[in-house]
Amino acid sequence: MAHINEHYLKLQAGYLFPEIGRRVKAFAAAHPDARIIRLGIGDVTLPLAPAVIEALHAAVDEMGSAEGFRGYGPENGYDFLTEGIAEHDYRSRGVEIAPGEIFVSDGSKQDSGNIQEIFGTDCTISVTDPSYPVYVDTNVMAGRTGPIDSTGRYSGITYLPANEGNDFMPGPPEGRVDIAYLCSPNNPTGAVATRPNLEEWVAWARANDAVIIFDAAYDAFIQDDALPRSIFEIEGARECAIEMRSFSKRAGFTGLRCAYTVIPEQCTAATAEGKRVPLKGLWARRHATKFNSVPYIVQRAAAATLSGEGARQTAEQVAYYQENARRIREGLSAAGFTVYAGEHAPYIWMKTPRGLSSWDTFDQLLERAHVVGTPGSGFGPSGEGFFRISAFNSHDNVDEAIERIKKAFAS
Amino acid sequence: MAHINEHYLKLQAGYLFPEIGRRVKAFAAAHPDARIIRLGIGDVTLPLAPAVIEALHAAVDEMGSAEGFRGYGPENGYDFLTEGIAEHDYRSRGVEIAPGEIFVSDGSKQDSGNIQEIFGTDCTISVTDPSYPVYVDTNVMAGRTGPIDSTGRYSGITYLPANEGNDFMPGPPEGRVDIAYLCSPNNPTGAVATRPNLEEWVAWARANDAVIIFDAAYDAFIQDDALPRSIFEIEGARECAIEMRSFSKRAGFTGLRCAYTVIPEQCTAATAEGKRVPLKGLWARRHATKFNSVPYIVQRAAAATLSGEGARQTAEQVAYYQENARRIREGLSAAGFTVYAGEHAPYIWMKTPRGLSSWDTFDQLLERAHVVGTPGSGFGPSGEGFFRISAFNSHDNVDEAIERIKKAFAS
Repeated sequence: MAHINEHYLKLQAGYLFPEIGRRVKAFAAAHPDARIIRLGIGDVTLPLAPAVIEALHAAVDEMGSAEGFRGYGPENGYDFLTEGIAEHDYRSRGVEIAPGEIFVSDGSKQDSGNIQEIFGTDCTISVTDPSYPVYVDTNVMAGRTGPIDSTGRYSGITYLPANEGNDFMPGPPEGRVDIAYLCSPNNPTGAVATRPNLEEWVAWARANDAVIIFDAAYDAFIQDDALPRSIFEIEGARECAIEMRSFSKRAGFTGLRCAYTVIPEQCTAATAEGKRVPLKGLWARRHATKFNSVPYIVQRAAAATLSGEGARQTAEQVAYYQENARRIREGLSAAGFTVYAGEHAPYIWMKTPRGLSSWDTFDQLLERAHVVGTPGSGFGPSGEGFFRISAFNSHDNVDEAIERIKKAFAS
Repeated sequence: MAHINEHYLKLQAGYLFPEIGRRVKAFAAAHPDARIIRLGIGDVTLPLAPAVIEALHAAVDEMGSAEGFRGYGPENGYDFLTEGIAEHDYRSRGVEIAPGEIFVSDGSKQDSGNIQEIFGTDCTISVTDPSYPVYVDTNVMAGRTGPIDSTGRYSGITYLPANEGNDFMPGPPEGRVDIAYLCSPNNPTGAVATRPNLEEWVAWARANDAVIIFDAAYDAFIQDDALPRSIFEIEGARECAIEMRSFSKRAGFTGLRCAYTVIPEQCTAATAEGKRVPLKGLWARRHATKFNSVPYIVQRAAAATLSGEGARQTAEQVAYYQENARRIREGLSAAGFTVYAGEHAPYIWMKTPRGLSSWDTFDQLLERAHVVGTPGSGFGPSGEGFFRISAFNSHDNVDEAIERIKKAFAS
């Protein structure tokens, strides 16, 4: 008799974003005339940059010719892309990453969800709380946790509260944790790790033989050059960290799908008997067995964003969203809302008005302002009482949303 | 202290195809003038069909416009694609599959590797032997097996030998098996399941409350309309089968990446306490948590192959490869080699000449004929003594390869 993986039954009913989608769909059906402004899911809105479009067309033409056609690609990505990443994302910041340490994939969601597979199920994990739901959910599915408790926490996971007291960027855990998920610039809080923050984390990981899974999907939004964009800017991180980056937010690839994971040669973990095993080799084996590379045309498009016109055009898109973030932050702040972040991230983290719960804020905002945001509690228990507003939309829609939010909660 | 997933250490050193790649690369480096003909990895060689190129260009232009841009897609695929699949791949054969039972993905390799996640680790599995290595390797990684033994078999897996005696299409196992992998047309043997074969399998699965994972990635190569293309053509399969299909081989998408998995509403498995749980819901949860849909432009390209000019053009490509298969089968057969299959699949399954081992045949063929094939033993112990020759290449290369193979083993 085939049995199911019962760990799935421990999960909350729905993954956060589909749940939001369902509520918005129901509202739209009931109010067909409402012009809904979506500042929820964090999906980009600007069309692909001209250099990306050009690269796609050129690559499509190659695929239509006998000489240019490409079937299965190299498992870890084409050299032109991994070498471009090593040069433009790392060497330009003084960090040496070998192209062979880079694994191109179809998304940081996939990578941050799949990475736990190469670790033992006995590993304990930590997340900053709130956090991107994929970190927790994939570990629940893998059986690294017990059931969820009444506070919304799974046993077996260490939740590190991110709050006003620590600028929404908690330090390392005190108890035993083997694998720590860390995201900067942070989804959902928009907070960013400083160099001292990351130094503290790396020192902790090395002292405790732990591994840091560093999700830098939003690195392009960092406006201050002194802030680290990569954990590998920190001395010693090569021994204890895995990093994920994505073309989704920095180049508008949410519908095109390209990202990558970096695992340095020196990053190892132990067998039960204490033998050290390089994590890069395990991930390479997983990648070769369960993945089949990113479409050639998409890899060409990604490479086109790393330098020259493509880099300039996509930086302009990021600046466009950053301007939205500034308007939301300043607009809501001036109207008396308590808002955080949005300087080095496309997210504003708002305290819910009048002590409302996160989901009540969601429902009221949808009902009264026809604006979609994301309830902070959807990202973890410490997100309760907060609300994430995304900067991905047009300037006009953002301006209107700000006005509608103000009105919806006017006293 | 972070521990690795030690199940990975049970795996054979390398995934089969990278190992072949390494040997070919080493040979090519040592013999820079050798014109190597590749009939190994099973990658398509014809450029994408004009209708596919046209659909890609049109979709790329959409993505470059404010009105046409698409970010994150629906998790399970766009309606235009799932509805097209339901209509053209199923309804046209008299099979009712709802679009909501179809999950679009970036590859059957991924789907057939990931599907085991929704089952308990206590489930026992069977594979026909030889088989596509992903079925076994992903179950090893998940901890469903013990170590490999000296015969190349993992404990915990039931190997069903495919051989001349059963036309390379074994029937169901006799002992307890919870999840059975079945591939038709078969990779690597090229054998195809008849209707009575599949009826026997479905009856077994229903009697034993087992689930059949049916991999139909090569369905387009079936030349006899009486042969089932889908397991859902068999009465009762909706209760016990999951099916995978791919655009890779039928439309040349190996470098473009699009496939899908069908899980009918009625297909369930049990909790330890005997409660029935629909597998579709579990897969939907996995898909939403660990996957982020296939690029819009690729889904448009896939949809373009389902009907009209696109269907006609891609059918011509399949016919081109089928003609290759015929030449290999008849050419080698006339020269005294013992060859099987190749009528309803792009693979010819050849008995190794002179009782050579599979890998010796690989090495000698590379050395003497500069032809790359795939050693049968790489697909499982019962593949020893056989050799897979792929029909994916040009007519000219195939003709030359046949002559070279004849010469290499001339007495």
